Amino acid sequence: MAILDRINSSEDVKQLKDYKLVPLCKEIREFLVDNLSKTGGHLASNLGAVELSVALHRVYDSKKDRIVFDVGHQGYTHKIITGRKDQFPTLRQYGGLSGYPKPTESEDDAFIAGHASNSVSVAVGMAKARTMSGGDYDVVAVIGDGALTGGLAYEGLAYAGASEEPMVIILNDNNMSIDPNVGGTARLLQRMRVRQGYISFKRWYKDAFSKVPKLYAFNHKIKEWIKWHILPGNMFSSMGLYYLGPVDGHDVKELEHVLRWARDRREPVLVHVITKKGKGCEYAEEHPECYHGVGRFDPVTGEMPPAKANFSEKFGEYLSEFAEKNDKICAITAAMASGTGLDIFAKKYPDRFIDAGIAEGHSTAMAAGLAKQGMVPVFAVYSSFEQRGFDMLIHDVSLLNLHVVLGIDRAGIVGGDGETHNGVFDVNYLSSVPGLTLLCPSNFAELHDMLESALFEIDCPVALRYPRGGEGEYKESRKEQESIIREGSDVTLACYGTMVNEMLKAADILEKQGISAEIVKISAVKPELYPVCISSAEKTGRLVVAEEVCAAGCVGERIVTRAALAGKAVSNVKLLNLGEGIVAHGDRALLMKEKGIDAEAIAKAASELCGR
Amino acid sequence: MAILDRINSSEDVKQLKDYKLVPLCKEIREFLVDNLSKTGGHLASNLGAVELSVALHRVYDSKKDRIVFDVGHQGYTHKIITGRKDQFPTLRQYGGLSGYPKPTESEDDAFIAGHASNSVSVAVGMAKARTMSGGDYDVVAVIGDGALTGGLAYEGLAYAGASEEPMVIILNDNNMSIDPNVGGTARLLQRMRVRQGYISFKRWYKDAFSKVPKLYAFNHKIKEWIKWHILPGNMFSSMGLYYLGPVDGHDVKELEHVLRWARDRREPVLVHVITKKGKGCEYAEEHPECYHGVGRFDPVTGEMPPAKANFSEKFGEYLSEFAEKNDKICAITAAMASGTGLDIFAKKYPDRFIDAGIAEGHSTAMAAGLAKQGMVPVFAVYSSFEQRGFDMLIHDVSLLNLHVVLGIDRAGIVGGDGETHNGVFDVNYLSSVPGLTLLCPSNFAELHDMLESALFEIDCPVALRYPRGGEGEYKESRKEQESIIREGSDVTLACYGTMVNEMLKAADILEKQGISAEIVKISAVKPELYPVCISSAEKTGRLVVAEEVCAAGCVGERIVTRAALAGKAVSNVKLLNLGEGIVAHGDRALLMKEKGIDAEAIAKAASELCGR
Repeated sequence: MAILDRINSSEDVKQLKDYKLVPLCKEIREFLVDNLSKTGGHLASNLGAVELSVALHRVYDSKKDRIVFDVGHQGYTHKIITGRKDQFPTLRQYGGLSGYPKPTESEDDAFIAGHASNSVSVAVGMAKARTMSGGDYDVVAVIGDGALTGGLAYEGLAYAGASEEPMVIILNDNNMSIDPNVGGTARLLQRMRVRQGYISFKRWYKDAFSKVPKLYAFNHKIKEWIKWHILPGNMFSSMGLYYLGPVDGHDVKELEHVLRWARDRREPVLVHVITKKGKGCEYAEEHPECYHGVGRFDPVTGEMPPAKANFSEKFGEYLSEFAEKNDKICAITAAMASGTGLDIFAKKYPDRFIDAGIAEGHSTAMAAGLAKQGMVPVFAVYSSFEQRGFDMLIHDVSLLNLHVVLGIDRAGIVGGDGETHNGVFDVNYLSSVPGLTLLCPSNFAELHDMLESALFEIDCPVALRYPRGGEGEYKESRKEQESIIREGSDVTLACYGTMVNEMLKAADILEKQGISAEIVKISAVKPELYPVCISSAEKTGRLVVAEEVCAAGCVGERIVTRAALAGKAVSNVKLLNLGEGIVAHGDRALLMKEKGIDAEAIAKAASELCGR
Repeated sequence: MAILDRINSSEDVKQLKDYKLVPLCKEIREFLVDNLSKTGGHLASNLGAVELSVALHRVYDSKKDRIVFDVGHQGYTHKIITGRKDQFPTLRQYGGLSGYPKPTESEDDAFIAGHASNSVSVAVGMAKARTMSGGDYDVVAVIGDGALTGGLAYEGLAYAGASEEPMVIILNDNNMSIDPNVGGTARLLQRMRVRQGYISFKRWYKDAFSKVPKLYAFNHKIKEWIKWHILPGNMFSSMGLYYLGPVDGHDVKELEHVLRWARDRREPVLVHVITKKGKGCEYAEEHPECYHGVGRFDPVTGEMPPAKANFSEKFGEYLSEFAEKNDKICAITAAMASGTGLDIFAKKYPDRFIDAGIAEGHSTAMAAGLAKQGMVPVFAVYSSFEQRGFDMLIHDVSLLNLHVVLGIDRAGIVGGDGETHNGVFDVNYLSSVPGLTLLCPSNFAELHDMLESALFEIDCPVALRYPRGGEGEYKESRKEQESIIREGSDVTLACYGTMVNEMLKAADILEKQGISAEIVKISAVKPELYPVCISSAEKTGRLVVAEEVCAAGCVGERIVTRAALAGKAVSNVKLLNLGEGIVAHGDRALLMKEKGIDAEAIAKAASELCGR
């Protein structure tokens, strides 16, 4: 790490002699593989963006200039360069380095990232601010080809082009497949405008044609269509963006040259950079889809410990089972086939599977169209990403009371990804969707039974909410909307989903203190009535509700209100939840402890209510 | 109305001899002007779509085939044709004909409409459903050029093209301005593919160049960029859509011919139709921006009664006043400059004004970028449309606690536009945005003072929520978060915003019954503490909270919960609100009565609590 040891800022990178840049990139790659093999993180995408990041710091000053990363899966090298390499052993861990750009972590991080396709909008806002206030800095957006399928990117690009604001948009294009239509490729070549340096197009072209898992084919098809047919020298320049590219994203000197050129044009410029996911690491280059977001792995072989059974996988498995019974059932993902477990469904029912790209709004509205014509669409999506589909849930799905089934994955605290990815607003926003039924399975057996009910019994909008990861100790499946799963007399503990496991532990702790806790498990948090909770609270005189969601619109509020409306007001009550809903990255158990929603905290709250 | 009298279905239109089509369109126009002059409604856009609608019914059967209108501002002729002309005197009125397509109103309406840009997604969902289930019907989406600026349309088009599903997308292009870049126009001409019939391009070209109000220039610039540079034979055909156009949208026979052709290609086809807003009605043609959504008017002269002072206009006025004191204040609209009153600001500060097109997500994220770099962006947007910006509020604005000011216009029941446009989910979704302050002015004076506070005192995300229309009797401005505006001893009435007027009337009614009501007016519904409400309810022992929002996450729930958490549980409580939040179109006062949130209903609820 001879060179890297002396790099702690943009300035240090700028001071390097040219001949040290290639060795620096090599050191950074070694650093990344070595560190991520221990901590996990986003490997393949970051390996692909090493030269690009170094070049950015050769040209810009991240303290003054604003480099806005999209999604943030390519920001590690930027972090390494800007004085944070010593923190990499703590990456994505409690109290440690965030896996995403984070202005509160460093002034070098211009903006937050996590949800796709926002970078151009944010960056053009910053550029407008500079112009309006007479500031003196440059603005860059770094957006991947995947994020380009999101409509937000299109809105941002259309505005950026029309705005004429000097800014640079870097399209980090790490595509893994090319549509066999060579017309698009030919057109692309023809439009290459970079005059200096040699663009190793042939090598990239050959690599790019290497086969991809069949599953991703359709998603790629859309991506490729957009990318190859529309973009180069076509959509971009038509939108008022000066198009430069394609540029070899692994030629650091050429990148530096092109970026400098782009910056100095003083107009909106799009630089199309071709990179390779997993670059420089054999197993990651070969299977970038397996090395996107990883846990620990063997740095030499790339071997990873086998994954444990989880809700996503089970969702895909059960859905495939039910799809056999009804050929109207179809499934939609927004570019997350394997993340949501729908890859299992897709293999079995390719004709009933839709990958719509990173486009949650479209996916939701399309599901409404499918349902209106008699299909039973199941849209599996991460809780925090479906915030993008909120309007469509109300406008397109709910107003016609359509039978759309939502698999709300990654509900609750997600762990390493942190605040942008936590699914803590869903209970609130989903509950406000008119007529929607919201089911919260607490284990795999309930996931199975509730999905069956969502598909075959309920015929209105219905969502199942389940967390990242697996089930806990509690494995029973309850049919009732509410069930007393442990009887007690001193205090009522109410919960839903996997929180039941904490509740059971809390009840054990309380028992040792001589406090008898009654646990009410809620299966459906909407429609909301909660008669069992209310009469239990009436009986015990005390109520604790613990939830892995934000305070606004939490179920605890509703139980308290329903009780009051029924004339059975509860005054000894504690609501344990995530407050405003911002929860950092780290181990889920630690975060639950910190936020006061683990077994100990629940027991403590209950114990206090009981006057201990 | 000789011909129109005999038209009650697609079938009747199909039976007409060709020579009757032009007279039919003339009759429909007369019918529209005559009726809308009495009821109000969307005039200019519907006048522009008469021939298109007739042609659609010549080619398709709206009972079987699925015609999905985008936004729905062009659906009146479709309603007239499909047996609903006799209901036009009740248009947009309580219990009467909806101003938008509505499947519950007629099976001829394939889908709901109101929010822009969803039609392609919905239609391709329907087309996929047909293919998956082996159905036999055609699918058409009708989308305007304005809706094309929304990212959702881009997501839908990208998917539709890649899907290869047989379907027709009609781009109803009623542009009012053309970018002076003739290159785009030339390219467009060159790509014209319609072989039959004469397209009266010259006339249209001349008309289109007629001058537009300067205000709309920037919005149009974006629109035009997208439309003229990217779309024709370029973006569309690159996306896998077969492009047909441009077609003269007022030549009904040619339209019929082209639509038939498009339908029979059995692939995704885009038909680019050029129409003129206000067509056939002189004043509407000349000032389409004034005759978009209208109230009553003189059918001969187009004269309209002067508009009354309203919250939107006041918002623009006050913002302009404050912008004088701080040159960091800038304003954003998503294609609603006049609707939100920002036209007033734009005239005064054109350099600090941004019209981002129909793109709420982008507008919100861009505001975050502006705020991050030290500007004070004010985004004025309709409550129900900002549902599209929900994710960006959390992800881009809130996680960095940025000082973005939202003017949430059209909050509550909006009247004639009905269920798609009601702003009844905002109190809930805005309250879940971490760190956001939510202010609810009850009159113009408070709007002024709260906006001042939002701009100069609060330095985190802040929203002001105000209704369509004007203020009521109550005109005081209160500085406190909660204030007792009328003292009483029997029951506490809590409210916020203009609901205070109903509360005061309710208190008068109650007084006559010998019941003494105390009214607590809440200025900021978030942050939520409500100590005054709680102690008032403790004093009176009874609480009624009335709100013009959905039940989920309503403020009443929060007050009840805060009281319980403070150990002051209220058990005599009634929460009056809009339940699931679906409220039809019609006069606001009638709807408030129906939903039980007007003065009488409040008084009745309070009286019941008092045991009367």
